[in-house]
Amino acid sequence: MNSRPSAPALLAEVTRGPAVESRHFGHAVVVDPNGKVLFAAGDPEHPTYPRSSLKPLQALAGLSKRTDQAFRFTDAEIAVICASHAAEPRHREAVARILEKIQATEDDLRCGPHAVPHAPTRDALIREDRQPTPIYSNCSGKHSGMLALARVLEAPLHGYWEADHPVQREIQRVLAAACDTDLSRLQWGTDGCGVPTYLMPLRELALGFARLAAPDRLSESDAAAARRITAAMNAEPEMVRGEGGFDSVVMRAMPGVLVCKGGAEGCEAAGLLGSGIGIAVKVEDGSARPLAAVVLSLFQRFGALSGSVPEALLPLLRPVVHNTRGEEVGEVHACV
Amino acid sequence: MNSRPSAPALLAEVTRGPAVESRHFGHAVVVDPNGKVLFAAGDPEHPTYPRSSLKPLQALAGLSKRTDQAFRFTDAEIAVICASHAAEPRHREAVARILEKIQATEDDLRCGPHAVPHAPTRDALIREDRQPTPIYSNCSGKHSGMLALARVLEAPLHGYWEADHPVQREIQRVLAAACDTDLSRLQWGTDGCGVPTYLMPLRELALGFARLAAPDRLSESDAAAARRITAAMNAEPEMVRGEGGFDSVVMRAMPGVLVCKGGAEGCEAAGLLGSGIGIAVKVEDGSARPLAAVVLSLFQRFGALSGSVPEALLPLLRPVVHNTRGEEVGEVHACV
Repeated sequence: MNSRPSAPALLAEVTRGPAVESRHFGHAVVVDPNGKVLFAAGDPEHPTYPRSSLKPLQALAGLSKRTDQAFRFTDAEIAVICASHAAEPRHREAVARILEKIQATEDDLRCGPHAVPHAPTRDALIREDRQPTPIYSNCSGKHSGMLALARVLEAPLHGYWEADHPVQREIQRVLAAACDTDLSRLQWGTDGCGVPTYLMPLRELALGFARLAAPDRLSESDAAAARRITAAMNAEPEMVRGEGGFDSVVMRAMPGVLVCKGGAEGCEAAGLLGSGIGIAVKVEDGSARPLAAVVLSLFQRFGALSGSVPEALLPLLRPVVHNTRGEEVGEVHACV
Repeated sequence: MNSRPSAPALLAEVTRGPAVESRHFGHAVVVDPNGKVLFAAGDPEHPTYPRSSLKPLQALAGLSKRTDQAFRFTDAEIAVICASHAAEPRHREAVARILEKIQATEDDLRCGPHAVPHAPTRDALIREDRQPTPIYSNCSGKHSGMLALARVLEAPLHGYWEADHPVQREIQRVLAAACDTDLSRLQWGTDGCGVPTYLMPLRELALGFARLAAPDRLSESDAAAARRITAAMNAEPEMVRGEGGFDSVVMRAMPGVLVCKGGAEGCEAAGLLGSGIGIAVKVEDGSARPLAAVVLSLFQRFGALSGSVPEALLPLLRPVVHNTRGEEVGEVHACV
């Protein structure tokens, strides 16, 4: 198990009536593109599986090999490669288009079917007595991007989920280039969708997003890919999560200001496009509940949310806790 | 806010591959019926909203006034009064029978509609394009029990959710009698279902369950009510939560051994019927994920799970983490 269990900091409180009912502990770190730590709560070196927060960097591996040019990917298709999408029709359609362009099929996707978050899509499946297929997985865009990379590398599609497959080797190269990850010590687990999820100090995840946002220090091909990815995610934010999703709402409310991506088990990573500041948060208990308040609080402190807060973000700063009658009974607020 | 923020203890770890991915912190306390603390992790005085863990004690207020005799409640009906049920047909039917017996209707229930946890029931509503009504709320049994108490007290049904209504006054009397709660300092928030949820030191919740399990120290009417409640919950454990629910599975696997009840935001309380030991756990982050492993670990330490563990409980001791492909990728294990 982990060699150094690290002491977490209080990240957020959840109130009910006159008292704090629940508290979320974890780690947060802010770095510049040189890797200098500008802020830390908890342990910036906390060993973290970034889960889906890594998707824009996993996408970088493909775009650095010009998959976007080989297959004429649109902004929407690049954004869905970076997405944890909600299986809305537009998401499934984009993944289907990618598969068609790369001459692959849904059967080539390794991702298992997911619980469908988009309620109308879920209800339609139930009414039609159908089970979700792999394309409904929130990771199906990432998987289709990995298949596209396999095509460009002229590698077999089969096995793209194995840590020593050429696709994963390219992703590991990106981790070294963007996050300064020491590949000789790299460990991984199996992600929810069946591919490796790499274990890294939280600071390295923040650094990867700093360099995604300000890619001058990357190689020419990586830098071009980074610019294409951040532009596509900002042009098509609803492809990154979907209607009402945090990443989609934030990039829609502040277009061109930042790139951000959430991951399972309480992860969020962001890069500020102007300053090249990178931010990463891991909620120790794996809950997404405090992330919006915590991340927006860090955006305020580090300049992405200066001046007036866009109206769409106001309810996310201090989310209200409702009861089943719709009454306000408490709130979530950040402590960092 | 709370006067004393208390330092939580590590309650459980969640692994993925070679590393710990997430950790749950919180508080746990074990007491005897005299209130002596036998074990504590974190802060036994942590101010806690027991939420639905309080339901058997809320039910005690009604049964102590002999609602069960006045309305000839069955074991199933008493168990559903103590329940966070899954809205299975048997649960809704039991609540409907209670409402009929006490000459009340679904319109008298204050509880708002809930997301329905029982998948076949949820799917049936979606197929029929219907919204869940108040009887589908997991708290509808508790509310019908409160209405029954209002009938016996000859109090108005309306307003039973107000802290100064005779129904709530009776519940507060039970808190003082069973939990040694100091009513002069009592605070409350609004529970998910619209009635008061009382704030109490975690130790007092454990004490309430110790005395529920070993009621000799209670008044004659409270003790008789406690015995009726623990017998009914053990006779009809599936009415307390439903198919596959933790409390239902535990009481079904070890009939007559204990009484236990989970609550929202990471609460669980239990009383061991033989020894009168009371146990209460609050996961700080509000997650239910670590509760089974943590509570079963405490059952093992304090004698409710001596000898061989019933087969139905084995998967709950160290729950496996699966990915969407059904593969084992990690586990949850208790640290207390």
